Amino acid sequence: MLILGQGYVGSTFAVGVERIKKGELGYYGIPLKNELQEKVEDIEIVGSYDVDKNKIGKSVYDVVKNYWENHIPESLKNVIVRKGIHLRSLRNLPIEAEGLEDEMTLKEAVEKLVEEWKKSTPDVIINVCTTESFTPFGNKEKLIKAIEDNNKERLTASQVYAYAAALYAKEVGGAAFVNAIPTLIANDPAFVELAKENNLVIFGDDGATGATPLTADILSHLAQRNRYVKDIAQFNIGGNADFLALTDKERNKSKEFTKSSVVKELLGYDAPHYIKPTGFLEPLGDKKFIAMHIEYVSFNGAVDELIINGRINDSPALAGLLVDLARLGKIAVDKKEFGTIYEVNAFYMKNPGPVEKPNIPRIIAYEKMRMWAGLKPKWF
Amino acid sequence: MLILGQGYVGSTFAVGVERIKKGELGYYGIPLKNELQEKVEDIEIVGSYDVDKNKIGKSVYDVVKNYWENHIPESLKNVIVRKGIHLRSLRNLPIEAEGLEDEMTLKEAVEKLVEEWKKSTPDVIINVCTTESFTPFGNKEKLIKAIEDNNKERLTASQVYAYAAALYAKEVGGAAFVNAIPTLIANDPAFVELAKENNLVIFGDDGATGATPLTADILSHLAQRNRYVKDIAQFNIGGNADFLALTDKERNKSKEFTKSSVVKELLGYDAPHYIKPTGFLEPLGDKKFIAMHIEYVSFNGAVDELIINGRINDSPALAGLLVDLARLGKIAVDKKEFGTIYEVNAFYMKNPGPVEKPNIPRIIAYEKMRMWAGLKPKWF
Amino acid sequence: MLILGQGYVGSTFAVGVERIKKGELGYYGIPLKNELQEKVEDIEIVGSYDVDKNKIGKSVYDVVKNYWENHIPESLKNVIVRKGIHLRSLRNLPIEAEGLEDEMTLKEAVEKLVEEWKKSTPDVIINVCTTESFTPFGNKEKLIKAIEDNNKERLTASQVYAYAAALYAKEVGGAAFVNAIPTLIANDPAFVELAKENNLVIFGDDGATGATPLTADILSHLAQRNRYVKDIAQFNIGGNADFLALTDKERNKSKEFTKSSVVKELLGYDAPHYIKPTGFLEPLGDKKFIAMHIEYVSFNGAVDELIINGRINDSPALAGLLVDLARLGKIAVDKKEFGTIYEVNAFYMKNPGPVEKPNIPRIIAYEKMRMWAGLKPKWF
Amino acid sequence: MLILGQGYVGSTFAVGVERIKKGELGYYGIPLKNELQEKVEDIEIVGSYDVDKNKIGKSVYDVVKNYWENHIPESLKNVIVRKGIHLRSLRNLPIEAEGLEDEMTLKEAVEKLVEEWKKSTPDVIINVCTTESFTPFGNKEKLIKAIEDNNKERLTASQVYAYAAALYAKEVGGAAFVNAIPTLIANDPAFVELAKENNLVIFGDDGATGATPLTADILSHLAQRNRYVKDIAQFNIGGNADFLALTDKERNKSKEFTKSSVVKELLGYDAPHYIKPTGFLEPLGDKKFIAMHIEYVSFNGAVDELIINGRINDSPALAGLLVDLARLGKIAVDKKEFGTIYEVNAFYMKNPGPVEKPNIPRIIAYEKMRMWAGLKPKWF
Repeated sequence: MLILGQGYVGSTFAVGVERIKKGELGYYGIPLKNELQEKVEDIEIVGSYDVDKNKIGKSVYDVVKNYWENHIPESLKNVIVRKGIHLRSLRNLPIEAEGLEDEMTLKEAVEKLVEEWKKSTPDVIINVCTTESFTPFGNKEKLIKAIEDNNKERLTASQVYAYAAALYAKEVGGAAFVNAIPTLIANDPAFVELAKENNLVIFGDDGATGATPLTADILSHLAQRNRYVKDIAQFNIGGNADFLALTDKERNKSKEFTKSSVVKELLGYDAPHYIKPTGFLEPLGDKKFIAMHIEYVSFNGAVDELIINGRINDSPALAGLLVDLARLGKIAVDKKEFGTIYEVNAFYMKNPGPVEKPNIPRIIAYEKMRMWAGLKPKWF
Repeated sequence: MLILGQGYVGSTFAVGVERIKKGELGYYGIPLKNELQEKVEDIEIVGSYDVDKNKIGKSVYDVVKNYWENHIPESLKNVIVRKGIHLRSLRNLPIEAEGLEDEMTLKEAVEKLVEEWKKSTPDVIINVCTTESFTPFGNKEKLIKAIEDNNKERLTASQVYAYAAALYAKEVGGAAFVNAIPTLIANDPAFVELAKENNLVIFGDDGATGATPLTADILSHLAQRNRYVKDIAQFNIGGNADFLALTDKERNKSKEFTKSSVVKELLGYDAPHYIKPTGFLEPLGDKKFIAMHIEYVSFNGAVDELIINGRINDSPALAGLLVDLARLGKIAVDKKEFGTIYEVNAFYMKNPGPVEKPNIPRIIAYEKMRMWAGLKPKWF
Repeated sequence: MLILGQGYVGSTFAVGVERIKKGELGYYGIPLKNELQEKVEDIEIVGSYDVDKNKIGKSVYDVVKNYWENHIPESLKNVIVRKGIHLRSLRNLPIEAEGLEDEMTLKEAVEKLVEEWKKSTPDVIINVCTTESFTPFGNKEKLIKAIEDNNKERLTASQVYAYAAALYAKEVGGAAFVNAIPTLIANDPAFVELAKENNLVIFGDDGATGATPLTADILSHLAQRNRYVKDIAQFNIGGNADFLALTDKERNKSKEFTKSSVVKELLGYDAPHYIKPTGFLEPLGDKKFIAMHIEYVSFNGAVDELIINGRINDSPALAGLLVDLARLGKIAVDKKEFGTIYEVNAFYMKNPGPVEKPNIPRIIAYEKMRMWAGLKPKWF
Repeated sequence: MLILGQGYVGSTFAVGVERIKKGELGYYGIPLKNELQEKVEDIEIVGSYDVDKNKIGKSVYDVVKNYWENHIPESLKNVIVRKGIHLRSLRNLPIEAEGLEDEMTLKEAVEKLVEEWKKSTPDVIINVCTTESFTPFGNKEKLIKAIEDNNKERLTASQVYAYAAALYAKEVGGAAFVNAIPTLIANDPAFVELAKENNLVIFGDDGATGATPLTADILSHLAQRNRYVKDIAQFNIGGNADFLALTDKERNKSKEFTKSSVVKELLGYDAPHYIKPTGFLEPLGDKKFIAMHIEYVSFNGAVDELIINGRINDSPALAGLLVDLARLGKIAVDKKEFGTIYEVNAFYMKNPGPVEKPNIPRIIAYEKMRMWAGLKPKWF
């Protein structure tokens, strides 16, 4: 297991997994607990990449100390953060970035990454970079050309990492790339095609944490009772680097770059809605505040209202999903199901790939995912 | 279709159905819309019973005028409210009650009801009486003995009505009894046994409206992500007759008389919780206020909180479900599936019978119910 | 009394006042009820101005019919909406505008307005135009020069109206201008100076409705207990023309153009906060949804949280204040207190002028305002 | 300073004060900060009483260790918890109680307390016992007779403590008794009369923490705008000993035993309301969950709604007030203002004595209290 982006999520993941190994924590926040044959305790972090000058060259242990003071497992001293690719991904953030592409062409950078990965041989590569401003490619040829042309304006870090993952997978006979951020990878046919040809499994896009999956389940709840949703407002505010990044307009837009709306897919009609990350408020830290208002029509014309508020820790929610995705990635490679796997994406991702597939109620998706993973459905 | 209890729910049901027939309303609030072969427009109200002195002998039209001023269909002038059974069901409420049992034995009252029903020949009898204080019977013999003994202290109105429904079903070859209130009927083996022997279908118990089904779906949402629920508080306050009735302690207890907790069944452990109807506040009317607080543990020990508030119209929510149940009751009779039907109860009822069956996530229950009714599942 | 801007607020005001005269409504929503010598029933609407092509030339009665169907007083047929000044105030809104400045210079337009006003002789002119993008003048000379130069890019409708009001006040010996929108008038020394010299009373700026006054009182509540506020997030979303206007970035900024923050003035330090109008959602109509989250430190380091949600009718809240301001304006003119009056502004305005004066807790401001108006304080 | 009841509140108070002395904490949560001449650092805890067998004889340091693990000041090792009076105050709680009255008559117990107090000579005695079920006396004679008769059924611990405080004050020439719990002391003319005759100052009753003062300020906010409140629902649930005690019906009633409603006093009419402690949920601990719903009528008949939720630490909120009350008590003794002092009670108490005095908006009360204490008002 290799981490791309040693930020809050990557650090929570690393700490949580190591603490579980030490017996300090239960399996809370991990959907499949320890039900899979691949155990949580089997997860081994073999590498980490970042582009923050203050992190490169340090151990994950030292990086993690920026976020917490206690309970940091000593085992994290053995993993050193290497220099990755940024391509403007930290633009406008108060962080000094340096990347391989500052010293070489993108093609050379990809080759260097593949060489490094071939030494540590991760089964699964997890992408938890900062939210990027991006444009999908649509077909494989355009993507390959952009790499060949060293087109730094066209590509983002995630796109280059995913490309490198495909080359790496080909060489080692199979690997998985988990894209937990909004950049479209599993929803970009360019990458899915590339993955199929190169023995890569892609899970993506955008880990289904925060208010969206809850909203999805509540909308499903209303849809099943045929209550007509008049309007939906959902606000989010937080104080972590991700919310800071979203104050950058270009990036914020990438959050909305979804093939279609969860609202329409679950309700069957496009109820008027305002759903987007709203602001940055530093003292909230990683625990964001959400507020949601839903107004709907019930039988005989009655109008009801729901208001949902929450204080939700952003990074642990995603890190808990990654513990499953790391293990499901390995299972998929073993099954040789290359390309992308909707059964997994539909539960774990806000924007489940491939591009032509819809959002479905998570509770249904959960049962389907269990069956895909060889587990018994829980209720069905 | 026959209504037992011409209160707010029964009146919303009657008005809504007639307005749909007139084309004034869509199918909002009816889970199965008009997807069944049995159409909403086919529902015909052939009788109505109540024990409020001010309602008996009046037309449903005149009764309904107490609740609304506008949009009352003229067709409701044709149904006259007859005298039913009360057995203390309006005790402590500011309503003067009179029942058949004031003039005759319970056995005679049952016979009288059956005779009346044989004239109007309803397929489905819907029980929407006021919440009662009750004790289940457990076996058929005890129930029959209580009727024979004219034991007015032991029996409640709903229990006598359900008994009468069984005798009626036997005589006409099949009928359905929908128990939308908390009294255990579908969860009382006495009634289920009786139903099987007498060609009666029972749906019950306690229509799944208000905060409980939403709570259930939210708990399922958390359970699927293996988030550990620390505590749940849920408050309800309203201003309709049902909330007034619940200020009576005996009755309130009947709300808690469930075979086991929805919390435990959905989470798999009994998270500390406080869930009960809380108070009566007249100006809120039929639109209750709910407040819910859930605290849970996510990955790496992080603690999150959800707060859910709502203004929800009580009666239309239940009346919308009754539109389905009336039609599903007829389908069940046609299929000759006598006794009680878990596939239907699991979606529509707070306390789905039979007694040995658990609560499951409603979204799953919805799909199973569709399949039972011969419809395609929506997402599965 | 004359209305500038016959939109939702102006229409609610007109309807409410006339309905009170007819005895159809109590004094709810009017802070001073009917305690002043100047009675609510004495308010007479003598003129109305707008720049919407669909409103100009129609009666207020006909305009108001766009907003409501029932309870529209016939007396509103007597007031015809005249053409006012727009100066881009409807830019980017789906409304076709025309103004006097399309046919003549601003100076001529001002003269025309003054002439018209001299015929209907209002005591008080109320400005409830759409939120504008503006720059304050700072000194009188710059303002006069902009009028003389016919500088349409520099001036906004409100600024021209306030200028005209001063000329009118001079001619008739005294008048009041109530600025209920965010454009700085009472906080612009240019206008205050002009007002003093011309017998004009200015009340302003930005009527204190919605979440802000409530936030102010809650912050005062915390300040008095010396609870340390860590952060404040406040969201607003609505569906009326004002929220639509605020989707225009320039205008939205004008909402933030305040001499200093209510947060700092009430707490004594600048707690991190995110407070701004957030979005537009048409089906919410005039009844906006607000969500607020406040986190603070109590004794011994304990951290508490408050979450406040509301559904609040925007226009009636402001219209109720205008009923007082119209009467207080007349009182101020009678007292010859020309310029601007902090005692009034501190209670009724979000941004109380003059510019050097702070926000104070509204409950205190209320008592001071009562004393200014010759009424007994309620609790002090 | 002497503490009666070394529970959560008493312990938070003791720890907080000592930590401030050590410079570990700011003055957050203390309304008057360090503005009084009597400094926070001057507060000295000279005694502590309890009736829990597990606390009597231990040091406050050891008792406090039951509540927290860290930051416990060593100085608390010097104060030993002595045996007080219980009179059923721990009835139905899972605590084994023993009191002086188990070994002697109440009269002897009072004498023993006075003797002990004369040795440690506290200026101020703070009562933070568990909520009691009680009946006020009304006149001094009845109270004295109950003591003389050793009437253990008639008296509560707080009533006996307050009686002892009066005898003590007489002997030492002046002292203050702060009653922070709901038992009526400052609102019982029996005690006020006794206090006046014996050089005792009483502050009371029931420290104004939690949702009530916030509700009061919000109702004042609405009252000032003449918004008509249709209904108010307020729920509270917590997991500390006080909430556990309130599951005892008798005690819960004492929370409602107020001379009249805050609702009526602030609004001027008795809006329908449901305001009472609602339940006990152990995992919430000292941080209670509150939910409030207010519906009101604004101008032109518009209906608005507010929903307020909170997570509020109960004990620190009260402990912070006690830091002021301890100092104000000393000031009052110095000023020889014996009896009870409404100016202080009106801000700090839910039920401000004397009995004939009303609740007023806290923001007003705050200013009046400052003036009484010789401080400048903050805004007035």
